[in-house]
Amino acid sequence: MRGLVFHQKLQFQTDLPLPPRPHGEARIRVIQAGICSTDLQLMKGYMGFEGVLGHEFVGIVDEAPDAALIGKRVVGEINAACRACETCTNGHPTHCPHRTTLGIQGRDGAFADFLALPVENLFVVPDSISDDQAVFIEPLAAACEIPQLVSIKPTDRVVVIGDGKLGILCAQVLVLSGCAVTLLGRHSDHDAWLTHMGIRITSHLTDISQGADMIVEATGSPEGLSTAMKLIRPRGTLVLKSTYHGNVSVNMTNFVIQEISLIGSRCGPFPPAIRLLETRHIRVDPLIHARYSLLDGVLAMEKADQSGIRKVMLQMT
Amino acid sequence: MRGLVFHQKLQFQTDLPLPPRPHGEARIRVIQAGICSTDLQLMKGYMGFEGVLGHEFVGIVDEAPDAALIGKRVVGEINAACRACETCTNGHPTHCPHRTTLGIQGRDGAFADFLALPVENLFVVPDSISDDQAVFIEPLAAACEIPQLVSIKPTDRVVVIGDGKLGILCAQVLVLSGCAVTLLGRHSDHDAWLTHMGIRITSHLTDISQGADMIVEATGSPEGLSTAMKLIRPRGTLVLKSTYHGNVSVNMTNFVIQEISLIGSRCGPFPPAIRLLETRHIRVDPLIHARYSLLDGVLAMEKADQSGIRKVMLQMT
Repeated sequence: MRGLVFHQKLQFQTDLPLPPRPHGEARIRVIQAGICSTDLQLMKGYMGFEGVLGHEFVGIVDEAPDAALIGKRVVGEINAACRACETCTNGHPTHCPHRTTLGIQGRDGAFADFLALPVENLFVVPDSISDDQAVFIEPLAAACEIPQLVSIKPTDRVVVIGDGKLGILCAQVLVLSGCAVTLLGRHSDHDAWLTHMGIRITSHLTDISQGADMIVEATGSPEGLSTAMKLIRPRGTLVLKSTYHGNVSVNMTNFVIQEISLIGSRCGPFPPAIRLLETRHIRVDPLIHARYSLLDGVLAMEKADQSGIRKVMLQMT
Repeated sequence: MRGLVFHQKLQFQTDLPLPPRPHGEARIRVIQAGICSTDLQLMKGYMGFEGVLGHEFVGIVDEAPDAALIGKRVVGEINAACRACETCTNGHPTHCPHRTTLGIQGRDGAFADFLALPVENLFVVPDSISDDQAVFIEPLAAACEIPQLVSIKPTDRVVVIGDGKLGILCAQVLVLSGCAVTLLGRHSDHDAWLTHMGIRITSHLTDISQGADMIVEATGSPEGLSTAMKLIRPRGTLVLKSTYHGNVSVNMTNFVIQEISLIGSRCGPFPPAIRLLETRHIRVDPLIHARYSLLDGVLAMEKADQSGIRKVMLQMT
């Protein structure tokens, strides 16, 4: 099969073997996949991953232990857990120490004609959700992880730092709590659609009064953290969404003196993301900037790495 | 009056003016004060403070706007807030941006014959609590801030890192929740009294199985954080108690991937600390290592800075 493989450099290959399909797993023919900032970070050494990249996808089940699944249009939770260890049985399978993660750790990803995932990871996509929208279910689930981990009060003043794909999805999820959300970033000045959704947009730190109850740091870079510490109120909540390679220099004593709660947040639950897309409470189509065929995947990744570019789609057919 | 003053170096002085007593404040004759690790950090440059050190004390009200207070034995919340700004009126007076803090920021402290504090900051000490015990109310309140900020489950497995004064108080408060508490430190091997209180003691990291639900980092040094990250489970809670001068190099991405909640925690509520001492659920007397007169305050501070030394008391009379 064809696929976009990262081994020190990124290459389009046409001679890849089909992904193995162990007991309990399904093979999925990928229709379309999205390029995530994590894919770009992986190419910079994050996680030390080598193999087929990609973890945001929609596809058709090609082979599965359960015949009823075959032919269904699905998306997939990317963490393949053992379902047997203490972490799994305590209800945290996405943190299973034995897990593989689609296109990130120990498992080839979605930038290929086929991928494999455990049947438990699959969610059938309702007909009312388009292929484009379905590709956003995985990152939207990650945004839904914020209210999963933290109680948000409708009276809270929230600032989302970073107006990339994930920041915009987080802002949209949070504004549904009734709270006042400001999105701080460099590329949203003309995004009137976000203003219509009730999100205040600014590119100037000085436009934001200090003392926010909650900050979501979704810049994908270490600088976001120091901006967050300028804006947060004492006893406020700082949700960290950014992942990047390497350490940063942090004044941890500030967290103690200000009694800040810092909440790390990664992948999230798929069913609420599917419901929010079905009910049209979340808009994702304006986030799509470009489409490429898998054959032009290397170009697509270069495009996605440009400043201000949001979702770049890869189409397999 | 006499006092222990830090101006680049620490000096015992006998010619200090009495502390001013602005509107709403009481003047307190100090009976006894405790040396805290924060006092030692202040002498290393933390907070850039200069003046009379000391914030753990018990004393007798000498002058006050309310005559009924005069002659009462009191302890005092160390943050003197404006009580008028948004932070104060929202219920966070200990975080008032205009606050002064006894012996830490903008206000002379307790290592002197007299100190001043707002009347609202004072708590009368019940007769059943000795002077020695009363000095521990302030740090015990800081330990009580942990359950104030975080929900602790009786089934939780908790590790307190650092067996200094604050670590031991935190361990004692937490074990009252019914949870399993291990205290990791270098100096507690012979502290049978802690074992009798239900606290498991070890000086070896390898004695502690990984996957703790909650970690309290109370080492007072940057190394505690990396130990904490080795022991905590995914989605666990890391309570930071240590304050120290300067930055540390941290892999913030670990917090995101593991979805750790990091909770900074500083000063705490006095009334629960007083109740827990009254009911004898917390023991503090075994923590006292030495007593000095104020005159020998410089020696007392040197003693307190030695490895393994817990509470050093300063007696004013």
